Amino acid sequence: MATLTVPAALPDAAEDAEQLHKAFAGWGTNENLIITILAHRNAAQRKLIREVYTSTYGEDLLKALDKELSSDFERAVHLFALDPAERDAYLANEATKKFSSSNWALIEIACTRSSEDLFQARRAYHSLYKKSIEEDVAHHTTGDYRKLLVPLVSSYRYEGPEINTSLAKSEAKILHEKISHKAYADEELIRIIATRSKAQLGATLNHYNNEYGNAITKVPETFGIALAVFNSYRILLKMILDLKADPKDDYLKLLRATIKCLTCPEKYFEKVLRLAINRLGTDEGALTRVVTTRAEVDLQRIKEEYYRRNSVPLDRAIAKDTHGDYEKMLLELVGRSDA
Amino acid sequence: MATLTVPAALPDAAEDAEQLHKAFAGWGTNENLIITILAHRNAAQRKLIREVYTSTYGEDLLKALDKELSSDFERAVHLFALDPAERDAYLANEATKKFSSSNWALIEIACTRSSEDLFQARRAYHSLYKKSIEEDVAHHTTGDYRKLLVPLVSSYRYEGPEINTSLAKSEAKILHEKISHKAYADEELIRIIATRSKAQLGATLNHYNNEYGNAITKVPETFGIALAVFNSYRILLKMILDLKADPKDDYLKLLRATIKCLTCPEKYFEKVLRLAINRLGTDEGALTRVVTTRAEVDLQRIKEEYYRRNSVPLDRAIAKDTHGDYEKMLLELVGRSDA
Repeated sequence: MATLTVPAALPDAAEDAEQLHKAFAGWGTNENLIITILAHRNAAQRKLIREVYTSTYGEDLLKALDKELSSDFERAVHLFALDPAERDAYLANEATKKFSSSNWALIEIACTRSSEDLFQARRAYHSLYKKSIEEDVAHHTTGDYRKLLVPLVSSYRYEGPEINTSLAKSEAKILHEKISHKAYADEELIRIIATRSKAQLGATLNHYNNEYGNAITKVPETFGIALAVFNSYRILLKMILDLKADPKDDYLKLLRATIKCLTCPEKYFEKVLRLAINRLGTDEGALTRVVTTRAEVDLQRIKEEYYRRNSVPLDRAIAKDTHGDYEKMLLELVGRSDA
Repeated sequence: MATLTVPAALPDAAEDAEQLHKAFAGWGTNENLIITILAHRNAAQRKLIREVYTSTYGEDLLKALDKELSSDFERAVHLFALDPAERDAYLANEATKKFSSSNWALIEIACTRSSEDLFQARRAYHSLYKKSIEEDVAHHTTGDYRKLLVPLVSSYRYEGPEINTSLAKSEAKILHEKISHKAYADEELIRIIATRSKAQLGATLNHYNNEYGNAITKVPETFGIALAVFNSYRILLKMILDLKADPKDDYLKLLRATIKCLTCPEKYFEKVLRLAINRLGTDEGALTRVVTTRAEVDLQRIKEEYYRRNSVPLDRAIAKDTHGDYEKMLLELVGRSDA
C-alpha cells in the first residue's frame, strides 16, 4: 500500500505548472509550495505537469527544480518528480557508475519491481543513456557480482501464481547442496534465483525451510529476533541464515539482499531504512531512494514493518534525523503516523 | 525486404474467415483456398482473421487448421498463421524441449529480431507457457551453452546508431586475446557479444578485422570463397574464420552462428536454407522455419544472397526438394523468381 496522498479537489496540470513557475520566481524560492504540489501528485499527474510545464515555459521542470533547489532536498524532489521508469533508469545508471557494496539500487530495481516495470526501466535506460542496463552492469562489474547482477537486471520473470511442487523440491535440494558447500556463486544457484517466478521461488524456499530447517528453532535468539517475528520470517529465514556464514563477505550480503528483495521486499526496505537512520550521520542517499521509490507502491507496509521492528514510527525517526525542506519533503511522502 | 505479397483488393476479415471455414467443410479440404488466403495476408490481417474466426465459429482457427491439415504442410501453415511474437515463443519453446546443436531457433530469435520483437516474444512466452524463455533455456542447458544462450535470450540491446570507437578498439583486443587463447566461452567474450548494440558490435568486429586480419588475403581460397564474395564478408570474416579452429566443436558452431545472426542475418539464413536443401532428404524443419519467420521481414535479401551463392533461384531449389501442398505454401511465401 502506498503512502502517497492526492487532494480530493485536484487543480489541473496547467494550474500546478503555473504555481510551480511562480514558486521559482523572484527573490528566494517557495519550497513549501513545491512540496505541497509535487509530493501530492501521482505518477500520471506529475508526468502531465512536466509536459505542460515544458510546453508553457520552454524549460524542463526538472531542470528548473535543479536550478532552484540544492543538496538532499533537490535530490528528493528530483527523484520523486521523475516518472518511475525513468527514475529507476536514473538510479541504475548512478549505481553502475559508482558500484559499491553499499549500493543496492540495482538489486532493488531488478528484484522488487514487477517484470513489466523492470522492462520499462530498461526501455527508459535506452532512451536516456543510449545503452542498455545489462551492458553497463556487465561492463562495470566482474566475477561473482557480474554473474549474479547481469541475469537479475535482464530478467523478465513469469508472474503468475502457478507452482511446480516437484521442481520446488528438487531446486530446494540444489540450493541446500550449494549453500552447504559454500558455493554461493554457483551457476545453478544463480540460475534458480535469477530466473524462477517469485511464486515458484517462494515454494522452493518454503520447502528448503521444511526440509533443511530442523535445528532452526534455536536460531532466533542468537540473532536477537523475537519468536513472533520469526514466524512471519519462516519461509525466508533458514536460507538467509545459512547465507550468514561469513558476514564480512560483500557478495554474500548482496545475495542475501537479492533473496529478501524477491521474497519480502517490505522487510528488506525496512532494514535499509533502519540502517540509514540508526547510524552516525544519516545515509541520505538510501533514505531518499527508499522513500521516493516506495511512496507510491508499498511504503505503508514498510512503515508498519518499521514500527513493529523499532517501536518508533518511521516519520518520527526521519524527523529526528533530518531537517529543513528535506525533512518536510520526506514527511509529506511518508505521511504522519497516528501513533 | 519481405517477399510476402498482399492482394490490392483485399477481402475483409469476415469474408476471409468464412472462406476458410468453407475450405474445411464437407468431404476433403480445399488446401488451395487456405494457401491463397493465409499466405497472402500480413500479420495484422491474419490476427484479425483469427479473431473473427473465433468469434464467428467458436473455434480457434489454428486448431481447425491442425485438424484439417497434416505433416509439413500443417506446420508451415500453422507457423505462418501465428502472430510473429507467438510464433517466436512457440519455436523457442520447441527448441528448449529438444535442444540440439542443429537447432538454431533460439539463436535466431535472440539475435536476428529487434530488441522490441524479442521482448514481445518473451511476453508471448509468459502467456503461452506460464514460464519465461530464460527460465526454460537456463533449466535445459548447461556449461558453455547456458553461459552463451541465457544472456542472449534475455538481452534488450540498445538499437541506436551511436558508436564508441575507443570501446570498439579495446573490445576488439579483448576478443582477439580470448580467441587466440581458444577461450571461446570466456565471460568477457560472451559479455561483449551478448550485451553490446549491433552497431557497436559491427564497429568492434570491423576493428578486429583491420587490426588482426593482416594475413587474411590468403584465407579465401582455403575456404573456397571467391574474392568478390569475400569483400562483402570482410567485417565478419576474420573473426568467423578465427572461430573455425575446431569445426567439430558444437559450441563453436553456435558461437559462429550467433555472430553471423547479429552482423549479417541474410548470410546466416542463406546458409541454413542451403544446408536444409542440399542434403540427402530435405530438412523441412529448418526450411519451414526460415521461410515462415522471414517472409514478412527480409526473405527478399535472403533470396538474393541464395542466388548469388548457389546460382539457382531459391524458389526453384525449393520446388525441386518439396512437393504437394507444402511446396505450394512455401512457394507462395517465397515468391516466384524472374530469373
